[in-house]
Amino acid sequence: MGSLTGRNFSVMTFGESHGPALGVVIDGLPAGLPISEEDIQRDLDRRRPGRSPYASPRREEDRAEILSGTSQGLTNGAPLAILVRNRDARPADYEDLKTAFRPGHADWTFFRKYGLAPQSGGGRSSGRETLSRVAAGAVARALLAPLGVTVRAASLAIGPVSAQRRDWAFAEANPLRFLDPDLAPLAEETVAGAMAKGDSVGSAVEFLAQGLPAGWGDPVFDKLEASLGRAFFSIGAVRAVEFGDGLAISRMRGSEANDPIGPDGPLSDAHGGVLGGISTGRPLTARLFVKPTPSITVPQLTTDTLGRPVELSVAGRHDPCLAPRLAPVAEAMGLLTLADCFLQGPSRLDRLGDVWR
Amino acid sequence: MGSLTGRNFSVMTFGESHGPALGVVIDGLPAGLPISEEDIQRDLDRRRPGRSPYASPRREEDRAEILSGTSQGLTNGAPLAILVRNRDARPADYEDLKTAFRPGHADWTFFRKYGLAPQSGGGRSSGRETLSRVAAGAVARALLAPLGVTVRAASLAIGPVSAQRRDWAFAEANPLRFLDPDLAPLAEETVAGAMAKGDSVGSAVEFLAQGLPAGWGDPVFDKLEASLGRAFFSIGAVRAVEFGDGLAISRMRGSEANDPIGPDGPLSDAHGGVLGGISTGRPLTARLFVKPTPSITVPQLTTDTLGRPVELSVAGRHDPCLAPRLAPVAEAMGLLTLADCFLQGPSRLDRLGDVWR
Amino acid sequence: MGSLTGRNFSVMTFGESHGPALGVVIDGLPAGLPISEEDIQRDLDRRRPGRSPYASPRREEDRAEILSGTSQGLTNGAPLAILVRNRDARPADYEDLKTAFRPGHADWTFFRKYGLAPQSGGGRSSGRETLSRVAAGAVARALLAPLGVTVRAASLAIGPVSAQRRDWAFAEANPLRFLDPDLAPLAEETVAGAMAKGDSVGSAVEFLAQGLPAGWGDPVFDKLEASLGRAFFSIGAVRAVEFGDGLAISRMRGSEANDPIGPDGPLSDAHGGVLGGISTGRPLTARLFVKPTPSITVPQLTTDTLGRPVELSVAGRHDPCLAPRLAPVAEAMGLLTLADCFLQGPSRLDRLGDVWR
Amino acid sequence: MGSLTGRNFSVMTFGESHGPALGVVIDGLPAGLPISEEDIQRDLDRRRPGRSPYASPRREEDRAEILSGTSQGLTNGAPLAILVRNRDARPADYEDLKTAFRPGHADWTFFRKYGLAPQSGGGRSSGRETLSRVAAGAVARALLAPLGVTVRAASLAIGPVSAQRRDWAFAEANPLRFLDPDLAPLAEETVAGAMAKGDSVGSAVEFLAQGLPAGWGDPVFDKLEASLGRAFFSIGAVRAVEFGDGLAISRMRGSEANDPIGPDGPLSDAHGGVLGGISTGRPLTARLFVKPTPSITVPQLTTDTLGRPVELSVAGRHDPCLAPRLAPVAEAMGLLTLADCFLQGPSRLDRLGDVWR
Repeated sequence: MGSLTGRNFSVMTFGESHGPALGVVIDGLPAGLPISEEDIQRDLDRRRPGRSPYASPRREEDRAEILSGTSQGLTNGAPLAILVRNRDARPADYEDLKTAFRPGHADWTFFRKYGLAPQSGGGRSSGRETLSRVAAGAVARALLAPLGVTVRAASLAIGPVSAQRRDWAFAEANPLRFLDPDLAPLAEETVAGAMAKGDSVGSAVEFLAQGLPAGWGDPVFDKLEASLGRAFFSIGAVRAVEFGDGLAISRMRGSEANDPIGPDGPLSDAHGGVLGGISTGRPLTARLFVKPTPSITVPQLTTDTLGRPVELSVAGRHDPCLAPRLAPVAEAMGLLTLADCFLQGPSRLDRLGDVWR
Repeated sequence: MGSLTGRNFSVMTFGESHGPALGVVIDGLPAGLPISEEDIQRDLDRRRPGRSPYASPRREEDRAEILSGTSQGLTNGAPLAILVRNRDARPADYEDLKTAFRPGHADWTFFRKYGLAPQSGGGRSSGRETLSRVAAGAVARALLAPLGVTVRAASLAIGPVSAQRRDWAFAEANPLRFLDPDLAPLAEETVAGAMAKGDSVGSAVEFLAQGLPAGWGDPVFDKLEASLGRAFFSIGAVRAVEFGDGLAISRMRGSEANDPIGPDGPLSDAHGGVLGGISTGRPLTARLFVKPTPSITVPQLTTDTLGRPVELSVAGRHDPCLAPRLAPVAEAMGLLTLADCFLQGPSRLDRLGDVWR
Repeated sequence: MGSLTGRNFSVMTFGESHGPALGVVIDGLPAGLPISEEDIQRDLDRRRPGRSPYASPRREEDRAEILSGTSQGLTNGAPLAILVRNRDARPADYEDLKTAFRPGHADWTFFRKYGLAPQSGGGRSSGRETLSRVAAGAVARALLAPLGVTVRAASLAIGPVSAQRRDWAFAEANPLRFLDPDLAPLAEETVAGAMAKGDSVGSAVEFLAQGLPAGWGDPVFDKLEASLGRAFFSIGAVRAVEFGDGLAISRMRGSEANDPIGPDGPLSDAHGGVLGGISTGRPLTARLFVKPTPSITVPQLTTDTLGRPVELSVAGRHDPCLAPRLAPVAEAMGLLTLADCFLQGPSRLDRLGDVWR
Repeated sequence: MGSLTGRNFSVMTFGESHGPALGVVIDGLPAGLPISEEDIQRDLDRRRPGRSPYASPRREEDRAEILSGTSQGLTNGAPLAILVRNRDARPADYEDLKTAFRPGHADWTFFRKYGLAPQSGGGRSSGRETLSRVAAGAVARALLAPLGVTVRAASLAIGPVSAQRRDWAFAEANPLRFLDPDLAPLAEETVAGAMAKGDSVGSAVEFLAQGLPAGWGDPVFDKLEASLGRAFFSIGAVRAVEFGDGLAISRMRGSEANDPIGPDGPLSDAHGGVLGGISTGRPLTARLFVKPTPSITVPQLTTDTLGRPVELSVAGRHDPCLAPRLAPVAEAMGLLTLADCFLQGPSRLDRLGDVWR
């Protein structure tokens, strides 16, 4: 599998939904960065299920243990490994799935590609896999924080309800992580309505990185949108991604779309903080469009591994809407991508410090 | 710069808009593939400017020369290098740009990142760079053709005009590569109207890959959407990407979005031919949303390299709408990504042939 | 650090000598390979200290735990993670080293590169780090075994005593892993003599891979000798590497050195089973020349982290000769390299099986 | 094929012995480095055949053309491509080889791996391929020169004649690039004697890098010896490599081998300027042991592509001893490796300059 990402800040994740443990190894960290299990735990707690009535009631302690890579609380240049044991696995819930392919899930393609019968909780394709990403993202966050780089994500749309304003503090406390306090009740109603019918709703996530210096991203294949695009599309359930006013801009005229340029760079944000694949120094914005949770109790047509038709109603513990859980993962993937940019060598000889001596 | 892509079908491109030449080296090609300069020329001709009244009148011969990697018309296992000389460069057109940053272009970020004053024709950030990608894409196309894999792209939207049906043969002959014969006149009017005002229009491209086997794509970071997402977002001017019914699906309920599964896999196409990051064997569909051409004669506010305000009207030869030129590049990036999947080793031990002996 | 190796069989190791744990994550394994903790344990036991009077008496249980990547005893396509807890760490032994740089060790360069004071037991530069490699090597061994590929290494020279014949079964049981039963007593005397003086001796390791098919290795930069050379030189203490009759061949004439070629390839072994960087199908042979253990009680001149001169006598538990412990690591590095070759895509189109469908 | 090397200073080479052209693309170069075709030509001229009576009389102009990556004589951050046309190809010389496998060459393994009949002049496996490496090495040399890093290589042994002292200026002018002025006549006699019999001799090359800062090289898999070892073993004909007193050290005791450490690092050079895989700041030394030229007119036993026995006498233009031609290639491979280290990001947070801002 492609479980490795990043050339400078290299991350390899491992672990399946109901196996013994999940985790991640990060190579390329410079020595001297303060990092603790608490730093990682803070981000893990933000993605944890069971935070709200609208989230899966599965309870996981998800305690992060640092296995290597630090000495006296500082990174020591060696690879940093983080381990999280699975404690609340309940394979029994999934017994009857074992031969039927869940629609909207990876069961059928995993069966074809790896020869695996549908696994307990999705195995490697489970959303639980993102725990490793969030743990690594916490380390990237600590690396970027001293530069003044902050990364946030929250729910922009819940089903048909789209936020009209963005209140990030509100979202952090809201059970749906929804950005618009005025429309939050409507969003909650939408989710509750779907839940009542055993159904789920689609959603969208707003991503915002602030404090980025100008100059990150590498044309032509490693443009910032390309690297972030790969990162975001690697999150299960993400079906579309836009940067800045991406979709809207495709219907504008050039005279409307071009951000005017002042002495310190672009003066507006239609391009979302990136020009020519390189950060401009303005806030970087992106949106991730997310399909509804595929696990629903509404009966669905599918087949089993012998090719026989089955009507399936997926029981188990599932979030009826993915944006609230996915937002911390979007942050993590953005952080990993930006940390990789940060650790790259210089693009100009006249900016060589004493770093390489 | 990040001019390398692909792990198995590895492609390194080079060349700037007004330098001596552009080209590409492809490493990882198996021996025995018939490939000729004509195969490459065919795809280069499809992206060539000067095909229509709505395209830049710049005329380039763009003759591809194979420098290495073939013996008697077959690949020989060695890296295949393709060279295209620049012949119609007219740096004079760009003289007055040399100190002003064009809005919507990479001029400002290249100045900040590489210390370069705005270059003739955009240098490495010019759309002309995509010629190398199309040349490599032609080789990927030849590699995939015997498998029955075909890849196409055409204009789905021109400004506010969206195709309501898809006639691929019509699009191939249409000057705007527009998919809908009925709406094509309206699309042409839209472009003509913008041109008359020295302005440009946004657009969208439909991408379609057919004949893909099930099983391509590598969770978790190299999911097929992640690799294709990176590939598409590496094309300048692409601001949003969706797979299948990506945006629409984010507003659906789970019971609507899940494709039912039959004995041969999904029975419908909301997910665009990919599940869990792995191809299902159904047609793979994606859409690329493209900003309007940033080069317009409408006067725009910008600054020069000394930070002084400038009102700039961009002269020169430019396409008023990018989708028709970008479609062959989208094909190429898709082809490179799929060729890389194809050449990967096996995902199951029981499928080992005599390949490695 | 550079803790990642392999493009197809990708291995990332982690862990320091006296930290909580060591381990490795392997990505790229095809599904369907039987692998158990016992398979890994077998190889770990072979590298374990405390096997003989001539080895460090440090006792480690070194129990391997598989954290992910298998289902019902078979690989499932997901990354396979292996964890080994450190149990017998005794940082106290190293207290007095904490400020003095041990000659022949990485202490001084780690201090310069990472800003680390000499760490307990060498930290990441400890020979204990190779445990992760051996664990991964055991998985590679299981992958290659069904092909008939076997990989062995043993002591060829102990100080000035060079084996005149090779008895692999004898070596496996010999405390010094020495290949020559006749000279083994002399080799043991040599080691015992050095130990008595608090000194150590240099050595050499013979590496032998059998059953390799012709065709592995990728000119020009990934020739088999290049990949194996990198692998072997990544083992601490290896100071020279030769393939086949490497050194001797550099003093021959062409008419002596060229292996004649029969209908099934080379008929002799001066080139060690590789021609043009590609395996010939004959046994692959290499030799690794190893420096004496740098940790000796003989007093040595060095400095501390403040630059003051120090006379240092290194206490602690150390092998007086490295070949016996290093041989299993050489096997592991060879196995990782060969597994990476094995999992590569095809070099010829006419050898495409149904693997990629 | 594996024609790509380097993660930060990434080099992809292409070209076959008797195809249209050879060349290289370099990605990752920072902007602002002065580089000209003359800089590259200078190194190409040093590897050119026809320099002496002991070298192949084949005459190649080998004119380097820069195709991209520079603006006004400075690198501009874009990939730098270099092209060298083949002008003196004489495929006729090789006509009769076309069906017989030359012993000691890659003919047989290329036939097996790629299905290619023995090609004119060896195709991709020809020594002529190293021209691309030398061109890239010249760029790396220009990058490292301002740091004070110099890299040299010359002949240390010619057949049984080993240099007893090293006079680098003498070697540069000597037709055999031999380091020892006193023994040079004997070395020349050795070569002349072999030539007279249609035979060839083995040799050894001394490699010396000076001015390296402490801190280059990345444990555990990218130790400096590992990266250089890979680089050196990727040169055809290299059969053994040692660093510092590599071979001799394997027969020493620890008390002899350990370099004592002073306030500025090691005080002697048994380890060849590397400790723990990281440069110490002292001169980096290595030796490459090289097989005799496999192309000899002495008749040899081989087979043709149909498996029939053939007695082959290799005509054509060949160097009777490889060290003089190989030395500039060893320099190039060392330079590429060191440039890759130089461009890496920082290993310590407290050494971050303003580079990434």
